[in-house]
Amino acid sequence: MKSSAGYDLTRLLCGSEGTLAIITKVTVKLHPIPEHTAAIVLSFSTLFQAASAVTTIRQLGISIHRCELLDALSISAFNQYNQNTINMPLLPHLFLELSASTSLSLNSHVQMLQDVLDDQHYTIIQIKYNDGERRTLWSARHQLYYATLALRPGATKAIVTDVCVPLSAFAKTIQQSVDLIQSHDLTAPCFGHAGDGNFHCIFPVKLDTYNNTDENDYIERVHKVYDIMIRNAIDVGGTCTGEHGIGYGKIKYLEMQYGKRAVDLMRNIKKSIDPLNIMNPGKVVSLK
Amino acid sequence: MKSSAGYDLTRLLCGSEGTLAIITKVTVKLHPIPEHTAAIVLSFSTLFQAASAVTTIRQLGISIHRCELLDALSISAFNQYNQNTINMPLLPHLFLELSASTSLSLNSHVQMLQDVLDDQHYTIIQIKYNDGERRTLWSARHQLYYATLALRPGATKAIVTDVCVPLSAFAKTIQQSVDLIQSHDLTAPCFGHAGDGNFHCIFPVKLDTYNNTDENDYIERVHKVYDIMIRNAIDVGGTCTGEHGIGYGKIKYLEMQYGKRAVDLMRNIKKSIDPLNIMNPGKVVSLK
Repeated sequence: MKSSAGYDLTRLLCGSEGTLAIITKVTVKLHPIPEHTAAIVLSFSTLFQAASAVTTIRQLGISIHRCELLDALSISAFNQYNQNTINMPLLPHLFLELSASTSLSLNSHVQMLQDVLDDQHYTIIQIKYNDGERRTLWSARHQLYYATLALRPGATKAIVTDVCVPLSAFAKTIQQSVDLIQSHDLTAPCFGHAGDGNFHCIFPVKLDTYNNTDENDYIERVHKVYDIMIRNAIDVGGTCTGEHGIGYGKIKYLEMQYGKRAVDLMRNIKKSIDPLNIMNPGKVVSLK
Repeated sequence: MKSSAGYDLTRLLCGSEGTLAIITKVTVKLHPIPEHTAAIVLSFSTLFQAASAVTTIRQLGISIHRCELLDALSISAFNQYNQNTINMPLLPHLFLELSASTSLSLNSHVQMLQDVLDDQHYTIIQIKYNDGERRTLWSARHQLYYATLALRPGATKAIVTDVCVPLSAFAKTIQQSVDLIQSHDLTAPCFGHAGDGNFHCIFPVKLDTYNNTDENDYIERVHKVYDIMIRNAIDVGGTCTGEHGIGYGKIKYLEMQYGKRAVDLMRNIKKSIDPLNIMNPGKVVSLK
């Protein structure tokens, strides 16, 4: 509910990763489920074109409920995982979901989308309006984690990166990340919650050989690449974490992103609310 | 931009009324201007019906950019202020603005709106698509402050109330406020940013006779009524201020609304960020 009464404690506690409070009760605001929805899968000649299309689509002002980008390697992982019973073209894809209150409205938005993308070298793979068919379409996206593990025999978990950049820098940044991964001789599908400028790369890890020297070297290379990705994201005004949080691992990037004075402010807030440092100590901000 | 890096300082500082920081630079996120817009003015038989219609309209999930409710007294003030060159029916009105990316979409939403309101005793006064005509239509709403001063000869300023309640309690609460004003022998148009559950009542005040005993008595009655309105709003889960803020005047309601522990938390935050109490001291939270 709209309010201007006092400091916004809700927003302060959201995303504080248990370092300021334990949430024991939540009241949520419900939004109406849209009456009409269309899932659309598009392929593009290049990753850059797919990512640029997102900016174009967002500028239309139509209601896009989901906007996910998958690179060609993600599609390849998906095809292999389904033992080639599904054969999506090995190109970068956009998975979109549009919604509207009337079917007339929805159809006119789908048409508008096709019109504006006209010069962006896309191919419509599928458009689905039916609930069940939409769900099938999205399975490619939802299976991606396990499909990626299957790319590297022996992998049982993965290091998943998470940076987010302004939409204007999205196409350049995701292309840069894919190039970076290749130049370090690594294999990692990249996909994004593209509507937000947020994307992830999945590096499969062999957990059972975690103490194996080869794997340690591999993990070290992954973290080196990830470090560069984060610095690149911050350089273009982005964030070191779009949705996974700071935890222990990203404490060092917080100051790089916001500057010392902002982190000092966070530290003061932490100390004033949790003077004994008993709430998830050591996470988000170091008190030293 | 989406981010989960550290505490949300932006939201903490927004609405802190200068008590935590001085904002010297702001970066804003731009949204596309909708391609197609319709302004619609509707009248209803009763205030309760007009306010209930808002809930119905919001549930459609269509894009409503503005949704303002004006009670019959507001309309009367407007007609008089325009020396009856404009004669809107002396009934509660809703002023809506709908927008969409395509004209097909917009038309289907306007039709949908009319269909769902079918049993709510409404009359469409006007629908305007043209920019200039839309602006003329909204002038009634924008002139309301001065139109209200003109209701009470000698008035030069006004006490404007500001509460906000969950949409489910909106119709009941605004009717209750109008009854309250009448039962205290006062005259104050009520209007609302109805889509948000936020509404204001305007009490004209004679500033030049501020020390006059009669006016002091009048102002006291206004504050008594306002106090009841705020308590009623908090009782139904609402807020003592939707958008005007706490300042000095509403400090006592902050604890009523959130409880002592939440206000203690705000106090701790204030002390940790501004230990010398030099940032707009005395506002929002008292430090005693």
